[in-house]
Amino acid sequence: MDKDVSDEPIGKPEASNGRIPGLGEIGLNNFAPYVMNRIMARWNANLAEDLKVRDMSTIKMRALAVLHVSGSLTINELSVLAVTEQSTMSRTVDALEEQGLILRTPRPDDMRVRDVAITAQGRAVFEDVWPLMYADLQRMLSGISEDEQFAFLATLHKILRNVRRHDI
Amino acid sequence: MDKDVSDEPIGKPEASNGRIPGLGEIGLNNFAPYVMNRIMARWNANLAEDLKVRDMSTIKMRALAVLHVSGSLTINELSVLAVTEQSTMSRTVDALEEQGLILRTPRPDDMRVRDVAITAQGRAVFEDVWPLMYADLQRMLSGISEDEQFAFLATLHKILRNVRRHDI
Repeated sequence: MDKDVSDEPIGKPEASNGRIPGLGEIGLNNFAPYVMNRIMARWNANLAEDLKVRDMSTIKMRALAVLHVSGSLTINELSVLAVTEQSTMSRTVDALEEQGLILRTPRPDDMRVRDVAITAQGRAVFEDVWPLMYADLQRMLSGISEDEQFAFLATLHKILRNVRRHDI
Repeated sequence: MDKDVSDEPIGKPEASNGRIPGLGEIGLNNFAPYVMNRIMARWNANLAEDLKVRDMSTIKMRALAVLHVSGSLTINELSVLAVTEQSTMSRTVDALEEQGLILRTPRPDDMRVRDVAITAQGRAVFEDVWPLMYADLQRMLSGISEDEQFAFLATLHKILRNVRRHDI
Protein backbone atom coordinates (compact mmCIF):
# COMPACT_ATOMS: atom_id res chain seq x y z
CA MET A 1 0.00 0.00 0.00
CA ASP A 2 2.86 2.33 0.80
CA LYS A 3 4.03 2.42 -2.80
CA ASP A 4 1.38 5.04 -3.57
CA VAL A 5 2.25 7.26 -0.64
CA SER A 6 4.14 10.24 -2.04
CA ASP A 7 5.39 13.39 -0.38
CA GLU A 8 3.12 15.52 -2.51
CA PRO A 9 0.74 17.43 -0.25
CA ILE A 10 -2.81 16.62 -1.32
CA GLY A 11 -4.13 20.11 -1.03
CA LYS A 12 -1.13 21.78 -2.65
CA PRO A 13 -2.27 24.85 -4.54
CA GLU A 14 -1.81 24.87 -8.29
CA ALA A 15 1.68 25.67 -9.47
CA SER A 16 2.14 29.18 -10.83
CA ASN A 17 1.93 27.84 -14.38
CA GLY A 18 -1.59 26.61 -13.59
CA ARG A 19 -0.70 22.93 -13.92
CA ILE A 20 -2.57 20.71 -11.48
CA PRO A 21 -0.87 17.59 -10.06
CA GLY A 22 -1.91 14.31 -11.71
CA LEU A 23 -3.46 11.38 -9.85
CA GLY A 24 -0.20 9.46 -10.33
CA GLU A 25 1.67 12.22 -8.52
CA ILE A 26 -0.84 12.43 -5.67
CA GLY A 27 -1.14 8.64 -5.44
CA LEU A 28 -4.41 6.74 -5.13
CA ASN A 29 -3.81 6.13 -1.42
CA ASN A 30 -3.31 9.85 -0.77
CA PHE A 31 -6.59 10.66 -2.48
CA ALA A 32 -8.81 10.92 0.61
CA PRO A 33 -12.20 10.21 -1.03
CA TYR A 34 -10.75 7.06 -2.61
CA VAL A 35 -9.56 5.75 0.76
CA MET A 36 -12.92 6.69 2.34
CA ASN A 37 -14.81 4.85 -0.43
CA ARG A 38 -12.74 1.74 0.24
CA ILE A 39 -13.31 1.99 4.00
CA MET A 40 -17.05 2.49 3.67
CA ALA A 41 -17.43 -0.38 1.18
CA ARG A 42 -15.74 -2.68 3.73
CA TRP A 43 -17.61 -1.20 6.72
CA ASN A 44 -20.99 -1.58 4.99
CA ALA A 45 -20.21 -5.13 3.81
CA ASN A 46 -19.01 -6.15 7.30
CA LEU A 47 -22.08 -4.64 8.93
CA ALA A 48 -24.44 -6.32 6.44
CA GLU A 49 -22.74 -9.65 7.22
CA ASP A 50 -23.13 -9.09 10.97
CA LEU A 51 -26.75 -7.94 10.68
CA LYS A 52 -27.77 -10.91 8.54
CA VAL A 53 -27.46 -13.10 11.63
CA ARG A 54 -30.27 -11.05 13.17
CA ASP A 55 -32.28 -11.03 9.92
CA MET A 56 -31.83 -7.26 9.62
CA SER A 57 -30.78 -5.20 6.58
CA THR A 58 -28.33 -2.29 6.69
CA ILE A 59 -31.03 0.15 5.49
CA LYS A 60 -33.52 -0.93 8.16
CA MET A 61 -30.76 -0.62 10.76
CA ARG A 62 -29.90 2.89 9.53
CA ALA A 63 -33.54 3.98 9.62
CA LEU A 64 -34.00 2.61 13.15
CA ALA A 65 -30.70 4.16 14.31
CA VAL A 66 -31.64 7.61 13.02
CA LEU A 67 -35.20 7.43 14.42
CA HIS A 68 -33.81 6.15 17.73
CA VAL A 69 -31.83 9.35 18.26
CA SER A 70 -33.84 11.91 16.25
CA GLY A 71 -37.49 11.72 17.31
CA SER A 72 -40.09 11.80 14.50
CA LEU A 73 -39.09 12.74 10.95
CA THR A 74 -40.58 12.94 7.47
CA ILE A 75 -39.53 10.32 4.92
CA ASN A 76 -37.47 12.98 3.18
CA GLU A 77 -35.59 13.95 6.36
CA LEU A 78 -35.13 10.29 7.23
CA SER A 79 -33.74 9.45 3.78
CA VAL A 80 -31.15 12.25 4.01
CA LEU A 81 -30.09 11.38 7.56
CA ALA A 82 -30.01 7.64 6.88
CA VAL A 83 -28.08 8.20 3.61
CA THR A 84 -30.60 6.26 1.54
CA GLU A 85 -32.52 7.21 -1.61
CA GLN A 86 -36.04 8.37 -0.91
CA SER A 87 -37.74 5.61 -2.95
CA THR A 88 -35.73 2.93 -1.15
CA MET A 89 -36.49 4.55 2.20
CA SER A 90 -40.22 4.60 1.38
CA ARG A 91 -40.20 0.84 0.84
CA THR A 92 -38.10 0.30 3.98
CA VAL A 93 -40.51 2.37 6.06
CA ASP A 94 -43.43 0.31 4.68
CA ALA A 95 -41.68 -2.89 5.74
CA LEU A 96 -40.74 -1.51 9.17
CA GLU A 97 -44.33 -0.39 9.75
CA GLU A 98 -45.59 -3.86 8.84
CA GLN A 99 -43.17 -5.31 11.40
CA GLY A 100 -44.49 -2.85 14.01
CA LEU A 101 -41.07 -1.21 14.41
CA ILE A 102 -42.12 2.26 13.29
CA LEU A 103 -45.37 4.22 13.22
CA ARG A 104 -46.57 6.84 10.73
CA THR A 105 -48.92 9.57 11.92
CA PRO A 106 -50.36 12.49 9.95
CA ARG A 107 -49.05 15.83 11.22
CA PRO A 108 -51.91 17.70 12.99
CA ASP A 109 -51.24 21.01 11.19
CA ASP A 110 -50.75 19.43 7.74
CA MET A 111 -52.49 16.12 7.14
CA ARG A 112 -50.58 15.61 3.88
CA VAL A 113 -47.34 15.19 5.82
CA ARG A 114 -46.87 12.00 7.78
CA ASP A 115 -44.26 11.81 10.51
CA VAL A 116 -42.33 8.60 11.04
CA ALA A 117 -41.43 7.61 14.61
CA ILE A 118 -39.86 4.53 16.18
CA THR A 119 -42.06 2.28 18.37
CA ALA A 120 -41.07 0.66 21.68
CA GLN A 121 -40.64 -2.58 19.78
CA GLY A 122 -38.46 -0.81 17.22
CA ARG A 123 -36.26 0.53 20.01
CA ALA A 124 -35.95 -2.97 21.46
CA VAL A 125 -34.85 -4.36 18.07
CA PHE A 126 -32.33 -1.52 17.67
CA GLU A 127 -30.94 -2.06 21.19
CA ASP A 128 -30.56 -5.73 20.33
CA VAL A 129 -28.39 -5.12 17.23
CA TRP A 130 -26.55 -2.04 18.52
CA PRO A 131 -23.81 -4.06 20.31
CA LEU A 132 -22.85 -5.58 16.92
CA MET A 133 -22.42 -2.10 15.44
CA TYR A 134 -20.57 -0.88 18.48
CA ALA A 135 -18.19 -3.85 18.30
CA ASP A 136 -17.57 -3.02 14.60
CA LEU A 137 -16.84 0.59 15.58
CA GLN A 138 -14.39 -0.51 18.28
CA ARG A 139 -12.59 -2.69 15.76
CA MET A 140 -12.54 0.13 13.20
CA LEU A 141 -10.92 2.45 15.74
CA SER A 142 -8.60 -0.02 17.43
CA GLY A 143 -5.10 1.34 17.98
CA ILE A 144 -6.29 4.92 17.42
CA SER A 145 -5.99 7.18 20.47
CA GLU A 146 -8.89 9.29 21.74
CA ASP A 147 -7.04 12.47 20.71
CA GLU A 148 -6.57 11.12 17.20
CA GLN A 149 -10.26 10.10 17.06
CA PHE A 150 -11.36 13.60 18.08
CA ALA A 151 -9.09 15.23 15.50
CA PHE A 152 -10.33 12.79 12.85
CA LEU A 153 -13.98 13.59 13.61
CA ALA A 154 -13.28 17.33 13.53
CA THR A 155 -11.80 16.97 10.04
CA LEU A 156 -14.76 14.80 8.94
CA HIS A 157 -17.18 17.54 10.02
CA LYS A 158 -15.26 20.17 8.05
CA ILE A 159 -15.32 17.88 5.00
CA LEU A 160 -19.05 17.19 5.35
CA ARG A 161 -19.71 20.94 5.33
CA ASN A 162 -17.45 21.36 2.30
CA VAL A 163 -19.07 18.65 0.16
CA ARG A 164 -22.64 19.75 0.71
CA ARG A 165 -24.54 21.16 -2.26
CA HIS A 166 -28.23 22.00 -2.46
CA ASP A 167 -28.25 22.46 1.32
CA ILE A 168 -28.27 18.73 2.26
CA MET B 1 -25.49 19.53 13.73
CA ASP B 2 -23.82 20.40 16.99
CA LYS B 3 -26.69 19.09 19.05
CA ASP B 4 -25.37 15.57 18.60
CA VAL B 5 -21.82 16.41 19.60
CA SER B 6 -21.29 15.06 23.12
CA ASP B 7 -18.18 14.91 25.27
CA GLU B 8 -18.30 11.13 25.31
CA PRO B 9 -15.08 9.81 23.74
CA ILE B 10 -16.06 7.56 20.85
CA GLY B 11 -13.52 4.88 21.57
CA LYS B 12 -14.11 4.87 25.32
CA PRO B 13 -13.59 1.38 26.70
CA GLU B 14 -16.59 -0.38 28.21
CA ALA B 15 -17.45 0.67 31.73
CA SER B 16 -16.38 -1.80 34.40
CA ASN B 17 -19.95 -3.13 34.61
CA GLY B 18 -19.65 -4.16 30.96
CA ARG B 19 -22.28 -1.66 29.77
CA ILE B 20 -21.52 -0.19 26.37
CA PRO B 21 -22.49 3.42 25.59
CA GLY B 22 -25.67 3.78 23.53
CA LEU B 23 -25.84 5.55 20.16
CA GLY B 24 -27.75 8.39 21.84
CA GLU B 25 -24.83 8.90 24.23
CA ILE B 26 -22.20 8.79 21.49
CA GLY B 27 -24.30 10.93 19.14
CA LEU B 28 -24.86 10.20 15.45
CA ASN B 29 -22.39 12.92 14.42
CA ASN B 30 -19.67 11.42 16.61
CA PHE B 31 -20.15 8.03 15.02
CA ALA B 32 -17.33 8.16 12.45
CA PRO B 33 -18.70 5.62 9.93
CA TYR B 34 -22.02 7.50 9.87
CA VAL B 35 -20.31 10.80 9.03
CA MET B 36 -18.13 9.05 6.43
CA ASN B 37 -21.22 7.48 4.82
CA ARG B 38 -22.82 10.90 4.55
CA ILE B 39 -19.67 12.45 3.07
CA MET B 40 -19.22 9.68 0.52
CA ALA B 41 -22.87 9.78 -0.56
CA ARG B 42 -22.46 13.51 -1.27
CA TRP B 43 -19.01 13.11 -2.86
CA ASN B 44 -20.23 10.34 -5.17
CA ALA B 45 -23.40 12.24 -6.11
CA ASN B 46 -21.43 15.44 -6.80
CA LEU B 47 -18.89 13.56 -8.90
CA ALA B 48 -21.61 11.75 -10.88
CA GLU B 49 -23.21 15.14 -11.58
CA ASP B 50 -19.89 16.60 -12.75
CA LEU B 51 -19.02 13.57 -14.88
CA LYS B 52 -22.40 13.50 -16.62
CA VAL B 53 -21.35 16.63 -18.50
CA ARG B 54 -18.57 14.54 -20.10
CA ASP B 55 -20.91 11.57 -20.65
CA MET B 56 -18.87 9.49 -18.17
CA SER B 57 -20.13 7.30 -15.30
CA THR B 58 -18.52 7.15 -11.85
CA ILE B 59 -17.69 3.45 -12.26
CA LYS B 60 -15.98 3.99 -15.63
CA MET B 61 -14.06 6.89 -14.10
CA ARG B 62 -12.98 4.73 -11.17
CA ALA B 63 -11.83 1.92 -13.46
CA LEU B 64 -9.85 4.33 -15.66
CA ALA B 65 -8.35 6.06 -12.58
CA VAL B 66 -7.16 2.79 -11.08
CA LEU B 67 -5.78 1.48 -14.39
CA HIS B 68 -4.13 4.85 -15.03
CA VAL B 69 -1.97 4.48 -11.90
CA SER B 70 -1.77 0.68 -11.48
CA GLY B 71 -0.65 -0.87 -14.78
CA SER B 72 -2.52 -4.01 -15.92
CA LEU B 73 -4.84 -5.84 -13.52
CA THR B 74 -7.27 -8.75 -13.51
CA ILE B 75 -11.00 -7.95 -13.31
CA ASN B 76 -10.97 -9.17 -9.71
CA GLU B 77 -8.08 -6.89 -8.70
CA LEU B 78 -9.68 -4.01 -10.57
CA SER B 79 -13.06 -4.50 -8.86
CA VAL B 80 -11.43 -4.43 -5.40
CA LEU B 81 -9.29 -1.38 -6.13
CA ALA B 82 -12.13 0.48 -7.87
CA VAL B 83 -14.56 -0.43 -5.03
CA THR B 84 -17.09 -1.95 -7.44
CA GLU B 85 -18.78 -5.37 -7.45
CA GLN B 86 -17.13 -7.82 -9.80
CA SER B 87 -20.24 -8.36 -11.98
CA THR B 88 -20.69 -4.59 -12.41
CA MET B 89 -16.99 -4.21 -13.17
CA SER B 90 -17.19 -6.95 -15.81
CA ARG B 91 -19.92 -5.05 -17.65
CA THR B 92 -18.01 -1.77 -17.26
CA VAL B 93 -14.85 -3.32 -18.69
CA ASP B 94 -16.88 -4.66 -21.66
CA ALA B 95 -18.19 -1.16 -22.34
CA LEU B 96 -14.76 0.45 -21.92
CA GLU B 97 -13.23 -2.08 -24.31
CA GLU B 98 -15.93 -1.33 -26.88
CA GLN B 99 -15.07 2.37 -26.55
CA GLY B 100 -11.39 1.55 -27.08
CA LEU B 101 -10.43 2.90 -23.65
CA ILE B 102 -9.05 -0.36 -22.26
CA LEU B 103 -7.56 -3.53 -23.74
CA ARG B 104 -7.80 -7.11 -22.50
CA THR B 105 -4.94 -9.49 -23.25
CA PRO B 106 -4.57 -13.14 -22.20
CA ARG B 107 -1.69 -13.60 -19.76
CA PRO B 108 1.15 -15.50 -21.54
CA ASP B 109 1.70 -18.00 -18.67
CA ASP B 110 -2.04 -18.62 -18.07
CA MET B 111 -4.34 -18.08 -21.04
CA ARG B 112 -7.44 -18.34 -18.81
CA VAL B 113 -6.48 -15.08 -17.09
CA ARG B 114 -6.94 -11.88 -19.06
CA ASP B 115 -5.19 -8.71 -17.95
CA VAL B 116 -6.94 -5.38 -18.32
CA ALA B 117 -4.85 -2.33 -19.25
CA ILE B 118 -5.68 1.26 -20.17
CA THR B 119 -5.09 2.39 -23.77
CA ALA B 120 -3.59 5.72 -24.87
CA GLN B 121 -7.13 6.84 -25.71
CA GLY B 122 -8.29 5.78 -22.23
CA ARG B 123 -5.50 7.84 -20.69
CA ALA B 124 -6.54 10.84 -22.76
CA VAL B 125 -10.17 10.49 -21.59
CA PHE B 126 -9.03 10.18 -17.97
CA GLU B 127 -6.74 13.21 -18.27
CA ASP B 128 -9.70 15.12 -19.67
CA VAL B 129 -12.00 14.44 -16.69
CA TRP B 130 -9.30 14.47 -13.98
CA PRO B 131 -9.43 18.29 -13.49
CA LEU B 132 -13.12 17.91 -12.49
CA MET B 133 -12.20 15.36 -9.81
CA TYR B 134 -9.27 17.43 -8.66
CA ALA B 135 -11.49 20.51 -8.34
CA ASP B 136 -13.95 18.44 -6.25
CA LEU B 137 -11.05 17.31 -4.05
CA GLN B 138 -9.87 20.91 -3.58
CA ARG B 139 -13.38 21.91 -2.54
CA MET B 140 -13.68 18.93 -0.17
CA LEU B 141 -10.43 19.94 1.54
CA SER B 142 -10.87 23.69 1.51
CA GLY B 143 -9.99 25.35 4.80
CA ILE B 144 -8.12 22.25 5.98
CA SER B 145 -4.37 22.77 6.47
CA GLU B 146 -1.77 20.45 4.96
CA ASP B 147 -0.85 19.17 8.42
CA GLU B 148 -4.46 18.35 9.17
CA GLN B 149 -4.81 16.62 5.78
CA PHE B 150 -1.74 14.46 6.46
CA ALA B 151 -3.02 13.51 9.93
CA PHE B 152 -6.44 12.74 8.47
CA LEU B 153 -4.97 10.45 5.80
CA ALA B 154 -2.81 8.68 8.37
CA THR B 155 -5.93 7.91 10.43
CA LEU B 156 -7.80 6.77 7.30
CA HIS B 157 -5.01 4.28 6.52
CA LYS B 158 -5.16 2.85 10.07
CA ILE B 159 -8.94 2.52 9.72
CA LEU B 160 -8.68 0.82 6.32
CA ARG B 161 -6.32 -1.75 7.83
CA ASN B 162 -8.69 -2.26 10.78
CA VAL B 163 -11.84 -2.84 8.71
CA ARG B 164 -10.35 -5.35 6.32
CA ARG B 165 -11.65 -8.92 6.51
CA HIS B 166 -10.87 -11.78 4.15
CA ASP B 167 -7.64 -10.04 3.18
CA ILE B 168 -9.20 -7.39 0.90
